[in-house]
Amino acid sequence: MPLFKPSRRELLKLAAAMPALAMPAAVRAELGAPEGGNPGWFRFSVGDARVTVVSDGYFSLPTSGLGVNADPAEVQALLKRNFLSPEMGYSHTNHLYIETGDARVLVDVGSGNRFFETVGQLMGNLEAAGIDPFEITHVVITHAHPDHIWGIRDDFDEALIPDAEYIMGEAEHAHWTQDGLVDRVAPEDQQFVLGAVNSIGVDGVEWTLVGDGYEVVPGVTLIDTPGHTPGHMSVRVDSADASLIATGDAMTHAYTNFAHPDWYNGFDADGEQTVATRKRLLDMAAADRIAILGYHFPFPGVGHVQQDGDAYRFVPALWQF
Amino acid sequence: MPLFKPSRRELLKLAAAMPALAMPAAVRAELGAPEGGNPGWFRFSVGDARVTVVSDGYFSLPTSGLGVNADPAEVQALLKRNFLSPEMGYSHTNHLYIETGDARVLVDVGSGNRFFETVGQLMGNLEAAGIDPFEITHVVITHAHPDHIWGIRDDFDEALIPDAEYIMGEAEHAHWTQDGLVDRVAPEDQQFVLGAVNSIGVDGVEWTLVGDGYEVVPGVTLIDTPGHTPGHMSVRVDSADASLIATGDAMTHAYTNFAHPDWYNGFDADGEQTVATRKRLLDMAAADRIAILGYHFPFPGVGHVQQDGDAYRFVPALWQF
Repeated sequence: MPLFKPSRRELLKLAAAMPALAMPAAVRAELGAPEGGNPGWFRFSVGDARVTVVSDGYFSLPTSGLGVNADPAEVQALLKRNFLSPEMGYSHTNHLYIETGDARVLVDVGSGNRFFETVGQLMGNLEAAGIDPFEITHVVITHAHPDHIWGIRDDFDEALIPDAEYIMGEAEHAHWTQDGLVDRVAPEDQQFVLGAVNSIGVDGVEWTLVGDGYEVVPGVTLIDTPGHTPGHMSVRVDSADASLIATGDAMTHAYTNFAHPDWYNGFDADGEQTVATRKRLLDMAAADRIAILGYHFPFPGVGHVQQDGDAYRFVPALWQF
Repeated sequence: MPLFKPSRRELLKLAAAMPALAMPAAVRAELGAPEGGNPGWFRFSVGDARVTVVSDGYFSLPTSGLGVNADPAEVQALLKRNFLSPEMGYSHTNHLYIETGDARVLVDVGSGNRFFETVGQLMGNLEAAGIDPFEITHVVITHAHPDHIWGIRDDFDEALIPDAEYIMGEAEHAHWTQDGLVDRVAPEDQQFVLGAVNSIGVDGVEWTLVGDGYEVVPGVTLIDTPGHTPGHMSVRVDSADASLIATGDAMTHAYTNFAHPDWYNGFDADGEQTVATRKRLLDMAAADRIAILGYHFPFPGVGHVQQDGDAYRFVPALWQF
């Protein structure tokens, strides 16, 4: 399986090059990067729950990591047809923040300052959205990849959100913390293992380890969605007949994953399982018209799933004022 | 032709009901209106030009005004398939603001406080985007409908942006200001005529009346796009091999106008001409991969045109930080 798993050194090299790569001319045929930036939060309601998408920034990786079980020319043609760069991907990082009852639930903690230079903006964007991180009561981690958990600690190596309850899938925790994993993985995966272990073991965090169907608070439930990582979980919000599923990285691309649900990506640990999980989510969201949030979809990443023959299309939600 | 043209009284009745209609549950199956609102501006670059989409707000009108030459059941099915309300439309109002060289060009001036309660937010959103309206050097009016020109005057009936050059298509100006028009139109259109005449005649504005191909400033050109109104014009920005066309109301819906370019709307003055103009724009944008901005498309309304058999799809641009 031709996985695209850059080494830590390669990631840092990419990161160092990011200012230049931030928005290569080819990413959008006609539109360039803004000076001065754009807002990094988007708010709406799911029933009685007020939810906010808060961005940690974005990053670019070569598109060779997309659809690694497909013909690269076909992947590139699909990207080009959708006015995306055939060379460099553009991944947003859309965190879900849920206010329901007295609970304040944040899903994933972003990259912090240890990954790409263009991420690590979660805390600043929470503030811009008027959210006080010290009010967060629950932190849910979908999985222990760098862009989802490395932001867990501050510059003093302590938990950035010290008073929240931290929740993770038991299977995800067990995978990353198993004895000797770092010695059994390929060299290019070792930094991912060390980063996960260090993040999970950060001072001041006691983990609540859970399984499929765990209710974080009334109306906020975790769903087993394995494949991208062994214990990946998604977050479902239900309130007053409305529902939203934050799919984490069970889907990572708003075009390739929908047009070709069979394609998996280099970062999907188990390609076949990723595909099975994704099809289950897409079928459910399409049939029940459940809104979804894709962590890496174009900001704000919220929308619906439209059936399109044997495939699907992502229909972005309306921006609302 | 079963035009949907509500009377001024009906519009005011709708406007009065707007808080309740703002986001009916059915508009999006799962997502409700936010408390506290969302940002109303979006910035990017077109070559060396810095452009900002600035919203005047949104309004809702019954979907019976969409695709008035089509089977209403087919229109409603298309809306529902795209997770839009089959009953009430949701129109954004995306103004283009162009900074190129020393010029500061604003396209259309919004509704002001004379139309729906949910619009009239242009000045506030300009400020939020860090734009000083007194720096605006040129105001281009695509056409003289209420949501594009009624905001021209302040509460003292004087031009809100007094020092800019005001530019409009000669045909558009001639149409609305022709002698006795108000007495020749249907009663329900009289307020549109009076509103246009009063707006065009506002104190302190001298009009520069222009035709197809007029260059506002280097890189900003007007294109004749008649049909929606007799003298409707669109705005093309070209800079350093990049291009964007602000299509005004030559396209008013990001789903119906793309899936069925033959359908015209109740507010399109000449349906057949609107369709011909729209097809010309869609063909050009698809073939040349030119970015477009739809005034009423889902905010921020910027994207590309994808050919899809005999029809088209709107592909929203990436939000960029």
